[in-house]
Amino acid sequence: MEIKLEENERVDDLQINNLKIIQKNDGFCFGIDSVLLSHFAEDIKSGSKVLDLGTGTGIISILLTALVEPEHITGVEIQPKVADMARRSVSLNNLDDKISIINEDIRKLEYILKLGKYDVIITNPPYIKANSGVQSASYTQLISRHEIECNLEDIARISNKLLREYGQIYMVHRPDRLADIIETFRRYKLEVKEIKLVYSRQCGQANLVLIKAIKNGKPFLKIRNPIYIYNKNGEYTEDIFEIYGKNK
Amino acid sequence: MEIKLEENERVDDLQINNLKIIQKNDGFCFGIDSVLLSHFAEDIKSGSKVLDLGTGTGIISILLTALVEPEHITGVEIQPKVADMARRSVSLNNLDDKISIINEDIRKLEYILKLGKYDVIITNPPYIKANSGVQSASYTQLISRHEIECNLEDIARISNKLLREYGQIYMVHRPDRLADIIETFRRYKLEVKEIKLVYSRQCGQANLVLIKAIKNGKPFLKIRNPIYIYNKNGEYTEDIFEIYGKNK
Repeated sequence: MEIKLEENERVDDLQINNLKIIQKNDGFCFGIDSVLLSHFAEDIKSGSKVLDLGTGTGIISILLTALVEPEHITGVEIQPKVADMARRSVSLNNLDDKISIINEDIRKLEYILKLGKYDVIITNPPYIKANSGVQSASYTQLISRHEIECNLEDIARISNKLLREYGQIYMVHRPDRLADIIETFRRYKLEVKEIKLVYSRQCGQANLVLIKAIKNGKPFLKIRNPIYIYNKNGEYTEDIFEIYGKNK
Repeated sequence: MEIKLEENERVDDLQINNLKIIQKNDGFCFGIDSVLLSHFAEDIKSGSKVLDLGTGTGIISILLTALVEPEHITGVEIQPKVADMARRSVSLNNLDDKISIINEDIRKLEYILKLGKYDVIITNPPYIKANSGVQSASYTQLISRHEIECNLEDIARISNKLLREYGQIYMVHRPDRLADIIETFRRYKLEVKEIKLVYSRQCGQANLVLIKAIKNGKPFLKIRNPIYIYNKNGEYTEDIFEIYGKNK
């Protein structure tokens, strides 16, 4: 399929099922966090209706079509140009039947989508509290990283409304927010049931946390074995080769 | 010092500073969790007033005298015979000036001890919710393991009352309770600030979680590098040799 590229855009190969993605040369590119989250969510059941909140380039929605067998994925993106780029990536992969990209504010989804009908929500939300941390250069990067248009409370409230009973939410976030996440999710009846930590190296603190919560789940948390990105010699570990290796 | 042993008691060497401990031959002996917790709490400041809730054999209070420089430690134990055994262990080590063992119900401490005066609380509480799990044989074992005489809510409420502003609580617990711990602690203004996970092996789930919380602390969680107990060959790891190695 012929897809028009805008200025400053390029097509990258996702190294799995011949999937491609359009990204900005100078903008916000997908990172290892989205790839790890997609793999963490490999237990999504066949036939699930999935909602990808803040889909950005569409990376998670597109990867999931190769890793699980969703009935349908809806990717939600607030920025019109980014949503358009994600939509073109979906078309480039002939996935228009599988993935819909909607250009919408997550906070308004409860008035647009059917309530209690989604099996799975997956999200790589902004990590940083509004007005804290070093602020990114462009507005696109700013709202991708800082909780300006969408915060944890929004994610939890919307997920509670849109998920079916015992529906699952998969999220990647920073470990420093884990207490906020657990407590906020609980207030919205989303019980954190599984955690997997990602460490850059064997010494030092965790850099990312992968979280699975269940709507109205019973309290009982499993903390899975962690992922290390680099070994002592600064090379990728087997964990990472396994994840990217599957992509070949 | 001559210390009388009761029937079925033995004296074990703690392999550090020539410290000894009295334990039951057939009762509840201290485990690796108490040793790991004592080492996790190595950042306790010199001159701290420490409270050890549910001290049992007194293992944590006694080990702490070798690892940090507390002004004084008060160990609280509800069972008269266990408290007496801990008191004899304290005397055996000539630590009567440093450690007081009181035979008291943790839930009554707020009426007995001064409020807001402790720098540090340390505790290895019962892990299992009352009326769940396989119940232990003896009453001593039962109340050490099950939340019968003391639950998370009790620990949090008492800690909030007895700790000074920004005082610290160190606790070891089971990972499956982590969401309960974070949320319950928050309700009592105890913010979980550091977590260290303990894995038996490199694959598989975490078996223990070490937690440091601060009274009225600002939300920001550090997840430290984990500890593995056994390596792939089933031998103790260097982490464990380092902890027990210091004890020589």
